[in-house]
Amino acid sequence: MSSFEQSFAKSLEQYAELVVRVGVNIQKGQDLLVTAPVETLEFTRLVVEKAYAAGANYVQVDLEDDTITRSRFEHGSDDSFDYYPAWKGDMMERFAEAGGATLTIKVPDPDLYNGIEATKVSRATKAAAEARKGYAKYTRNHEISWCLIKAPTKAWANKVFADIPEEDRIRVMWDTIFKMNRVDGGDAVQNWKEHLETLNKMSELLNQKNYKSLHYRAPGTDLKIELVNNHIWGGGGSENKQGVYTVANMPTEEVFTMPKRSGVNGYVSSTMPLNLNGQLVDQMRITFKDGQVVAYTAASGEEHLKNLFSTDEGARYLGEVALVPHHSPISNLNRIFYNTGIDENASCHLAVGSAYPFNMKDGTTMSNEELLKHECNVSLTHVDFMIGSAELDIDGELQDGTIEPLFRKGNWAF
Amino acid sequence: MSSFEQSFAKSLEQYAELVVRVGVNIQKGQDLLVTAPVETLEFTRLVVEKAYAAGANYVQVDLEDDTITRSRFEHGSDDSFDYYPAWKGDMMERFAEAGGATLTIKVPDPDLYNGIEATKVSRATKAAAEARKGYAKYTRNHEISWCLIKAPTKAWANKVFADIPEEDRIRVMWDTIFKMNRVDGGDAVQNWKEHLETLNKMSELLNQKNYKSLHYRAPGTDLKIELVNNHIWGGGGSENKQGVYTVANMPTEEVFTMPKRSGVNGYVSSTMPLNLNGQLVDQMRITFKDGQVVAYTAASGEEHLKNLFSTDEGARYLGEVALVPHHSPISNLNRIFYNTGIDENASCHLAVGSAYPFNMKDGTTMSNEELLKHECNVSLTHVDFMIGSAELDIDGELQDGTIEPLFRKGNWAF
Repeated sequence: MSSFEQSFAKSLEQYAELVVRVGVNIQKGQDLLVTAPVETLEFTRLVVEKAYAAGANYVQVDLEDDTITRSRFEHGSDDSFDYYPAWKGDMMERFAEAGGATLTIKVPDPDLYNGIEATKVSRATKAAAEARKGYAKYTRNHEISWCLIKAPTKAWANKVFADIPEEDRIRVMWDTIFKMNRVDGGDAVQNWKEHLETLNKMSELLNQKNYKSLHYRAPGTDLKIELVNNHIWGGGGSENKQGVYTVANMPTEEVFTMPKRSGVNGYVSSTMPLNLNGQLVDQMRITFKDGQVVAYTAASGEEHLKNLFSTDEGARYLGEVALVPHHSPISNLNRIFYNTGIDENASCHLAVGSAYPFNMKDGTTMSNEELLKHECNVSLTHVDFMIGSAELDIDGELQDGTIEPLFRKGNWAF
Repeated sequence: MSSFEQSFAKSLEQYAELVVRVGVNIQKGQDLLVTAPVETLEFTRLVVEKAYAAGANYVQVDLEDDTITRSRFEHGSDDSFDYYPAWKGDMMERFAEAGGATLTIKVPDPDLYNGIEATKVSRATKAAAEARKGYAKYTRNHEISWCLIKAPTKAWANKVFADIPEEDRIRVMWDTIFKMNRVDGGDAVQNWKEHLETLNKMSELLNQKNYKSLHYRAPGTDLKIELVNNHIWGGGGSENKQGVYTVANMPTEEVFTMPKRSGVNGYVSSTMPLNLNGQLVDQMRITFKDGQVVAYTAASGEEHLKNLFSTDEGARYLGEVALVPHHSPISNLNRIFYNTGIDENASCHLAVGSAYPFNMKDGTTMSNEELLKHECNVSLTHVDFMIGSAELDIDGELQDGTIEPLFRKGNWAF
């Protein structure tokens, strides 16, 4: 091996170790479900090795292939798209019941469904969400350990690094992923410890502020978002109900909390394209009244947005408010990744759909009815979209009505 | 594409169509579980396409990777090998309950577990069989559609075709698989129709004979096997309880029935190596008394045999008697495939472990207790081993005590 190859192999191993030990924080005797694109097999093998070495009892690996995923929509019969197997949904719920942890490499090809009728995909997405409702409760309430990470695939690297020679793209994507994840040749676990402390401190500060509402202003955006009573800001990692500290998204640069379901008014414009699991939406503008989406446009992919908002009532209300400074390390890469898990960490963002009950005091003990009563949104879906830019100002309104600057020109005002 | 490539592509497509339409015979609205080595991804994609085109509602693909499978035994902790997740076993049972069909590409690398302590693997195999008991009932009683097929992997092709240049092995393995499966450029479905008729006629003839016992004689073999009362010979395809005609093994050249559990006496020698899911056993000699294995030796892999016989009591009794003429098309290839699904179709064979209840009148309606009472063996395992050769003679004893030649020099005597 050349020294270059050695250094790559070392970074790859550090990254695998990091996602297993810090991300999902696998515990002795636990089951782990690794979902990964088949193209990332080499890395996935490393993850499995690290998971067993860390004491996993059984590692189930689901290797996904884009061609097979797309095949359903090319060759399946029309009446099959509203179907998702109950045995598969139930399996996930039982897996969660048994305390299993999930580690998912999620890098959908932004062009995967080009040429496929959009409703086929949205119907299938909705059917899957319906059948996996029982399981989703476990992740939303943070009852189990789960972690979303990234690894390069050809289609994704081609999309993101179209400006560099094709043969270099995968390697450059790896280097970028290492950088984003603070795998820098030093002690990545220690790097994360420090990073998570920084994010936790910011959450604490915001929890002390206890803002009543946030007011966003930027070109194409004038939006007031009330926050729920007893909202809790989270960020970095957190302890799940098993008492295990995990990091749900790697990379992560955000702090986030729960909007008041009926307290969103004004309009907001997206600042990056949105990859809806293989369907692109660009240049959205969404208008809210008393929390609900009442109008929307998009320069492209508007039909996907329409399908998203048709999922259920909750899909037309906000479920998450997240703050990320414009000078975040990922934002400074100055590149669109067509991957929400990354792009959302380069930009302030919002999510339509379900809120995370742990973003509200006692939220994780409430039924859906109680959550709605407390102005926590409930939905089958949860889709983040990016609204941050160098021109974004945000004011915070304190409980006593005082207005103070929170973000100026895209960055923290304090 | 060259004409050679065109012809290969055509054969591949015909084969995919064949296994979907004739093998598992997928029905409109049915779920299909395809289990395949990740190396066979290209072919698996074709299978998925054909399955959707044939009306499958949902195709679940489990891509398996040998390195990951082995990783557990290299890195897992010792106390984990008796474990198999209940959620996984239950999922398979619910899948079967829902009428799902399975199509499995089963080509274990005969050297997969070299250097791994044999008991780790046998413990895990047993734990899996325990947890999948509920599911196994569906396949053993032929309540659902299932089909085992073959496709080349590098490790397997290297083992079987070590005598030809490495770069040709995968292609030659494909050509061999096409040939075995009667994919010959003509109408493969029609070829199978004729082939299945031949096997069915042979089963009918043997059912009319209604032999009381079979007596095997060859170098290293002198074994008398009584057949159960009301035994039924099967071969080729058969109708499952859903009324769907499927072929459980492709290729298939055998006719087979149920031995009387307590009615096996003498000794028998294997004539081919046995690949126990990645563990090789060669030159076995097994002695039976009143049905039970009372002594055994093997030139290599004897410890795997020991572990197999330790699975449960039923693992030490016979569950299947199968007849294959020595001049069968696969046998004429004159090659050891280190794959039971193929080798058993080149050779008369026996299986230790569970019998197929459908090989006895009313067997599929009986409980395990009733099956045992009727001398049908019950076990978590079912392992075939090859005993056919050009020197094998078999006599059949009719119900009136008449002895007649059934096999002479490895082939049908009539």
